[in-house]
Amino acid sequence: MEKAFIPTEKKIAIINSLVRCGFRRMEVTSFISPKAIPQMRDAAEVVAGVDRSTGVSVAALVPNPRGAERAAAAGVNEMVTFVSASESHNRMNVNRSIAESLGGFREVIQIARGAGIPVTTGIAVAFGCPFEGDIPPERVANMIEQLLESGVHHFTLGDTTGMATPPIVTRTCEFLLQHFPAIELALHFHNTRGIGLVNVYAALQLGLTKFESSVGGLGGCPFAPGATGNVCTEDLVYLFHELGIDTGIDLEQLIIVARQVEEVIGRPLPGQVMKAGPRSRRHPLFEKPRA
Amino acid sequence: MEKAFIPTEKKIAIINSLVRCGFRRMEVTSFISPKAIPQMRDAAEVVAGVDRSTGVSVAALVPNPRGAERAAAAGVNEMVTFVSASESHNRMNVNRSIAESLGGFREVIQIARGAGIPVTTGIAVAFGCPFEGDIPPERVANMIEQLLESGVHHFTLGDTTGMATPPIVTRTCEFLLQHFPAIELALHFHNTRGIGLVNVYAALQLGLTKFESSVGGLGGCPFAPGATGNVCTEDLVYLFHELGIDTGIDLEQLIIVARQVEEVIGRPLPGQVMKAGPRSRRHPLFEKPRA
Repeated sequence: MEKAFIPTEKKIAIINSLVRCGFRRMEVTSFISPKAIPQMRDAAEVVAGVDRSTGVSVAALVPNPRGAERAAAAGVNEMVTFVSASESHNRMNVNRSIAESLGGFREVIQIARGAGIPVTTGIAVAFGCPFEGDIPPERVANMIEQLLESGVHHFTLGDTTGMATPPIVTRTCEFLLQHFPAIELALHFHNTRGIGLVNVYAALQLGLTKFESSVGGLGGCPFAPGATGNVCTEDLVYLFHELGIDTGIDLEQLIIVARQVEEVIGRPLPGQVMKAGPRSRRHPLFEKPRA
Repeated sequence: MEKAFIPTEKKIAIINSLVRCGFRRMEVTSFISPKAIPQMRDAAEVVAGVDRSTGVSVAALVPNPRGAERAAAAGVNEMVTFVSASESHNRMNVNRSIAESLGGFREVIQIARGAGIPVTTGIAVAFGCPFEGDIPPERVANMIEQLLESGVHHFTLGDTTGMATPPIVTRTCEFLLQHFPAIELALHFHNTRGIGLVNVYAALQLGLTKFESSVGGLGGCPFAPGATGNVCTEDLVYLFHELGIDTGIDLEQLIIVARQVEEVIGRPLPGQVMKAGPRSRRHPLFEKPRA
């Protein structure tokens, strides 16, 4: 969503600061054509710059076989392919039918397998499509079925434009967990309509434990100017810690990194905990509040 | 939190637009000393301007007996007094001990009773104090006990600086509902740390149904510049509707009002649904997203 090219050394510095906070998996770039998104032209250098001494798993988006080859050469630990749960969103996003996208994955998977790299597939608009509306869980299940046959074993359900709600999350995930009890399912919520963390909370109650987020809430929604994007990492980590869930992440350090990211981006980010600090923060009594 | 005086006719227009959205209770102003907060100097005119044809209950803050007399003369339907659950926050907020605040309520209650107007008490920092930290539920219960004796029967627990979390909300509310089964308890959450609506969701699971919020998420946090204030009304109503809860509120109309409020305030408000619309909003396929 950022129009400007962020200097490679700044990207690497941010990623390595996040590694030091304790993250064990990070999607750091996209091996998309540098012509399509020049902001990502430094994908290989970014991957090369990641400090992997902590064992962090470095994931990157690969939109096509060419991207998979570049990602394999760069030494990613995980390739991420993506397809939409609705024909119209897939067409709008990559100008292909779903069948064409799934067909294209075969070559990507072959390249990944050759390099010994696991593949995760992100299923976009899995909880609702801005063009078609509700997505039946059966349709997501059918897609997962086809992907399992292709050799994909890790899935992320993307709430790409923030249409997930607790009942839809519950219905969709319960259906999938019932049909694929051994599946590895991560959830990727957006806060476009303010209820991203409520969806996380509802998913936690189903026993799901893998969530994607972005530092500071970086990102946005192409259909809603001014709306937020991904749920914010610090807010998510804060919620987890307050629920007694151990994440292994240093929240105070993470807040510092989020503020650095805000400086690099040059405008306020939607994250809240980065502004207010965790609830454990005490204010001295002599400090007069603003109003 | 707004430094500028908002013209009285604009305040009244916003309130009446909200009345037409279907709200049945609104806190519209504060009968605080015009010297202390000149932005509220038009409290009586604002109350007089509310269209009560729908039977909306007009509530107003009354900080002291003088305010109660003005509120009674203006014809409010409900007076709201407030006290903090911690000595230090009460001292900082109104420069009085808790005992002095509770003592002062007696005269307010007498004036209200004489005018046949019910009194609600808001208990600030009920889920955590920025100076003292955790607030034991026993302390809130003790305060409610004293208030019941004074003749107050309606209570709002205020999460004044956004320190509530689902476990704290559950612990506090379960304790209070156990000790005061017949109590009328409303909840007032702030989104200071991004989890305001998660707290609402946790409280709903306890059977609580009364929540305070502010249109567009107006307000803020005196201790955290840039942080949001109250949970946002449109986002709350959106969540309720998606959970199958009938609020009697017209969300599409409410979004229009929130955008008008943003224009009056002159800067972006933190509300999300006012930017993205409800999930039922469809985008035409020919509309190319921004990025």
